[in-house]
Amino acid sequence: MTSSGFSQVGRKTVELFYDVVSPYSWIGFELLCRYRHKWNIDLKFKPFFLGAIMHYSKNSPPGSNLHKGNYAGKDLHRLRSYCNIPLNAPSDVAEVMFVKGTLSAQRLLTAISMDLDDKAVEDVSRELWLRIWSKDKDITEADSLLAAATNAGIPMEKAKILLTRIKDQDVKDKLKERTETALSHGAFGAPTILVHVDGKAHMYFGSDRMPLIAHLLGEKYEGPLPELSKL
Amino acid sequence: MTSSGFSQVGRKTVELFYDVVSPYSWIGFELLCRYRHKWNIDLKFKPFFLGAIMHYSKNSPPGSNLHKGNYAGKDLHRLRSYCNIPLNAPSDVAEVMFVKGTLSAQRLLTAISMDLDDKAVEDVSRELWLRIWSKDKDITEADSLLAAATNAGIPMEKAKILLTRIKDQDVKDKLKERTETALSHGAFGAPTILVHVDGKAHMYFGSDRMPLIAHLLGEKYEGPLPELSKL
Repeated sequence: MTSSGFSQVGRKTVELFYDVVSPYSWIGFELLCRYRHKWNIDLKFKPFFLGAIMHYSKNSPPGSNLHKGNYAGKDLHRLRSYCNIPLNAPSDVAEVMFVKGTLSAQRLLTAISMDLDDKAVEDVSRELWLRIWSKDKDITEADSLLAAATNAGIPMEKAKILLTRIKDQDVKDKLKERTETALSHGAFGAPTILVHVDGKAHMYFGSDRMPLIAHLLGEKYEGPLPELSKL
Repeated sequence: MTSSGFSQVGRKTVELFYDVVSPYSWIGFELLCRYRHKWNIDLKFKPFFLGAIMHYSKNSPPGSNLHKGNYAGKDLHRLRSYCNIPLNAPSDVAEVMFVKGTLSAQRLLTAISMDLDDKAVEDVSRELWLRIWSKDKDITEADSLLAAATNAGIPMEKAKILLTRIKDQDVKDKLKERTETALSHGAFGAPTILVHVDGKAHMYFGSDRMPLIAHLLGEKYEGPLPELSKL
């Protein structure tokens, strides 16, 4: 057994269910990316559809309450500098989150997860978050999605094929299946994190449960580790 | 200036607004008690009335959503061992939280905060949380409130006088004033934490913002420090 093969033994799997509409999902995503080697976890990206999660769990977003919405804005601003993630709210946040939405973007990520590797899913997810939650750019038009994919290193021809896949039934079904999996574990928002330890899936909600996840994994959490940022 | 006097210079004030109906308030309370010397903060206890906060901010408790309520139960169980706080849900949690409520308990804490010192408020608060959120004991009857006060070291005669104070207008007004202060800073739940730095009040919600509070204070957060537990 090679040393690389050996290092796989005893690795624990962490599944991150997320939607690029959610800035807290971005924080959870970056923190887990920074810790995956330190914690020796197998990090799996599971794009799901937050709109359906909120609908079926009968939950409502923080922005639907005036006090909570105002606080979330302050909280994200604090987390921006603390975590070194260049968060900026879109200029019309309600329109972007609730009218335009992310169904096409999440279907594109699903197609990438089916046809390419984890690295491609990671890189395109980051590009989509940078567009919607940092640079105030669209992520609903075909050109926008192609720009995110090609900026992440996917060749234009391949990106165009992937974009046509968002209308395919198998891609729609996979996104639905992932969303249902998260719901079956009690999801009511994003990020939803499943930590698989000793044959059991432990569900965590939010970007602020990293210390508890580390505790379950028997690892150390030392804060957001900005020096490991890819941003 | 004595060295003790000198150590006061530059101390920052942290106000903890809480209600003993809230288990997350207990966590926030214990964590701040464990850190107040490490961070050299002046920790002020501000019992308020969470029922009014939820009403005026138009917020609803996590338990009003099935998925959120189930998750909160799991989350509190995890936090119990991680933070070393002996949290146990009352046997009829909805009855205890929403029918019986904590108005008398919060008025007693308010009277103590007006007539005695911070240490008494701290100790009686902890006794009340131990009753409601650990030992499944009542905190609404006169005997229950007297037991909490005397267990915390207040002599019986004094405890009886304090208990009569919960009907006094000045005590009711003080509780109302504190609740309104929290609302004016955007409170929508508990704990609500005001951190005063450079003449400005920074509002934080929840027991999971300690790393961000430490960041603002220029201090280190090293987890829940169970070795400093008073429990």
